[in-house]
Amino acid sequence: MEPGDPRGKRVAVVGGGLVGALNACFFARRGFHVDVYEAREDIRVASFARGRSINLALSHRGRQALRAVGMEEQIVSKGIPMRARRIHTPSGKKYSIPYGKKNQYILSVDRANLNRELLTAAEKYSNTKLYFGHKLLGCNAELGKLTIKRSDQQPLEVTYDLIVGCDGAFSTVRKQFMRQMRFNYSHEYIPHGYMELTIPPKDGDFAMEPNYLHIWPRNTFMMIALPNMDKSFTCTLFMPFEEFEKLTTGKQVLGFFQIHFPDAIPLIGERELKHDYFLLPAQAMISVKCSSYHLASRCVLMGDAAHAVVPFYGQGMNAGFEDCLVFDELMDQLHNDLGACLPEFSRLRVPDDHAISDLAMYNYIEVTFTRIRYHEALQRWKWQKKIINRGLFVMGAAGLGGTYLLIKRLARDLNFCMENLWGWSHYLKNIGNFPFGIQVA
Amino acid sequence: MEPGDPRGKRVAVVGGGLVGALNACFFARRGFHVDVYEAREDIRVASFARGRSINLALSHRGRQALRAVGMEEQIVSKGIPMRARRIHTPSGKKYSIPYGKKNQYILSVDRANLNRELLTAAEKYSNTKLYFGHKLLGCNAELGKLTIKRSDQQPLEVTYDLIVGCDGAFSTVRKQFMRQMRFNYSHEYIPHGYMELTIPPKDGDFAMEPNYLHIWPRNTFMMIALPNMDKSFTCTLFMPFEEFEKLTTGKQVLGFFQIHFPDAIPLIGERELKHDYFLLPAQAMISVKCSSYHLASRCVLMGDAAHAVVPFYGQGMNAGFEDCLVFDELMDQLHNDLGACLPEFSRLRVPDDHAISDLAMYNYIEVTFTRIRYHEALQRWKWQKKIINRGLFVMGAAGLGGTYLLIKRLARDLNFCMENLWGWSHYLKNIGNFPFGIQVA
Repeated sequence: MEPGDPRGKRVAVVGGGLVGALNACFFARRGFHVDVYEAREDIRVASFARGRSINLALSHRGRQALRAVGMEEQIVSKGIPMRARRIHTPSGKKYSIPYGKKNQYILSVDRANLNRELLTAAEKYSNTKLYFGHKLLGCNAELGKLTIKRSDQQPLEVTYDLIVGCDGAFSTVRKQFMRQMRFNYSHEYIPHGYMELTIPPKDGDFAMEPNYLHIWPRNTFMMIALPNMDKSFTCTLFMPFEEFEKLTTGKQVLGFFQIHFPDAIPLIGERELKHDYFLLPAQAMISVKCSSYHLASRCVLMGDAAHAVVPFYGQGMNAGFEDCLVFDELMDQLHNDLGACLPEFSRLRVPDDHAISDLAMYNYIEVTFTRIRYHEALQRWKWQKKIINRGLFVMGAAGLGGTYLLIKRLARDLNFCMENLWGWSHYLKNIGNFPFGIQVA
Repeated sequence: MEPGDPRGKRVAVVGGGLVGALNACFFARRGFHVDVYEAREDIRVASFARGRSINLALSHRGRQALRAVGMEEQIVSKGIPMRARRIHTPSGKKYSIPYGKKNQYILSVDRANLNRELLTAAEKYSNTKLYFGHKLLGCNAELGKLTIKRSDQQPLEVTYDLIVGCDGAFSTVRKQFMRQMRFNYSHEYIPHGYMELTIPPKDGDFAMEPNYLHIWPRNTFMMIALPNMDKSFTCTLFMPFEEFEKLTTGKQVLGFFQIHFPDAIPLIGERELKHDYFLLPAQAMISVKCSSYHLASRCVLMGDAAHAVVPFYGQGMNAGFEDCLVFDELMDQLHNDLGACLPEFSRLRVPDDHAISDLAMYNYIEVTFTRIRYHEALQRWKWQKKIINRGLFVMGAAGLGGTYLLIKRLARDLNFCMENLWGWSHYLKNIGNFPFGIQVA
């Protein structure tokens, strides 16, 4: 058995969410023994509201990763294509801004269903075990040791060749990194919160055109709606917390919608709106950046644990899925040598994930704090498409990271610093940007 | 007794370093009962090397804070005025860049002595107690509770009306803030480390001109030297860690100095240089930013715990001292009402401390990564003086924050974002900057 031979090597994936479950598939295919530890119960048997987003936009990067584990078709068949943004003006007018060429689209997918299917796929590998209700108490990442607690049982110590932290924005695995000299870290809560509302089906069909991501841009507010398989839409209202807090009665909520989103009232239903607004408080959004993503040759962070992003670029899940794919490609290139793969993953991936984080924050600032006219947005978007297409042509050989890399290089040429939001913002003002710019790539 | 009456109210100052000891004086003068908890032993009785900087530059802001507790003269009398930067070129040429007008200077002060004098001053207040060897294990900041451990004793629970976290860049008090929703945090290690070396007295006198901050700028390296009361100089070599690590033998160290700092070799001594370089490893430098600085009306962070900065602007201690002064001024204005003072302190102080952090990081990047010629630096510095003097004139009434506020406003006028390093860098390129720019203000 060679040193890089996965047989007999054990991987602990911490977190059974989207990125954790997908990662389990990648490592299992490679021949590692994989144990997945998830603090919650199995979402396939227990169903409960968590205040998380109900649907997500799956785009090219995410699909490429699913394809690599043979799951693309299965997931795509349960998604709803969104070919364009559908802009709703305050006066009730609507117009469209496409995401790409005629045949390009992003997919609205159900988060819970996607998670369930990924867990089931992971479980099909005989070398994979899923442990639900197993909470990580702490770890010694250098030694590959985890302390795991199952409710009503004594904490358990287990040792692995590799720990993969996919435990989300508030990652417990990442806490271990915080003690390391030279580990850089930042997190930022944005002043906006979000709240989900529902547009139910109407006469057994979608109440609006289904193949769009609907957007109600309102300067510092914004509402979006994504279609679901049951012909409902899930709306997400983004608004500064202080504005959410001003609305304390159903009457106030209705008044607010009458001013800002009048066409949404009959879609959501007046009674439901006045009721649902108070079901859950508005949720916070956090942006987390860190570097590096690996610790020794035993531990690596992926997905939100490495780079939680604000949702305004629609790339959070897709970037997490791409993490898994990039790591898998490195394992091919470096013959499963973890000691070589981990630092190379950080070297390659940190700048790209920081870039998507900055782009998402840029879009947040642009969308919520400017009043750029939407026809300008459309023009800019065309400009950007052109640049990015040219980029993909030039950088085609570099694979999926091409777009990011290109933008990075262009930015560098123009003496802009990658880590710099303001720099990005002005840079992108030249190369084009667009409201709630979910990217097809 | 009014609600804001300090009598009978108890303040815990966590950390007996420079900012903690000064803060104890401020709160004690106001009539609070003050307990200072310091994890180390009393530096006035135990003496030990800690790898921290030996001397510091005390400037206007720091002096103002010392004056407010009646300690300015006492400290100034044990400092050595530095009226200008003394630039050492690789060829051994020297020239000066003053810090201000003829009568303006900054002071080289001994960190340990300053700390000792502040502790002794704090202890003179009958309502102040200092607890050395008392380590903070954790706290409940909302309830004002601290868990303190004295070696060989059981942990102790104590409750205070106010907890003041002055426990440095790796603050334990701040950990409590990390759990709060909407608390923003970042830390960054820079690629440079620092190492201290000594230039001993020569024939009973200073081996170089004493009333200068000596600088050997060398693009990505830099050495500085500050005078001490015993007529020695403490040199600090700043260099990327990877460069430090390349020098593994005394011979290599000597060769390196022969190329970059030839005039320093006879001053330090060839034998001492080859020996002292290996006494301690190069030390890391961290920049910490967070917001807000307060938690409920029970806990507040000051000094490095709130804003550790890189040392390239010479303002770390001065900004920490100014925190104490600004808080004290607020307590006057708001009649000792902690519930009003704490949020106001965050509101006022966060932008200023973030600004000094950005300026320090800007100077780091400018000094170590550019090759700006020093006569240009001098011209820029004159330019900046002009702007700042004009600013102080306009903003005079705004007090100590005037300079920051002015720069902030100018920056805003020019559409630059305060939090933005790159923006600052380009902004400052226009209004002037200078190498290792310790400010007199």
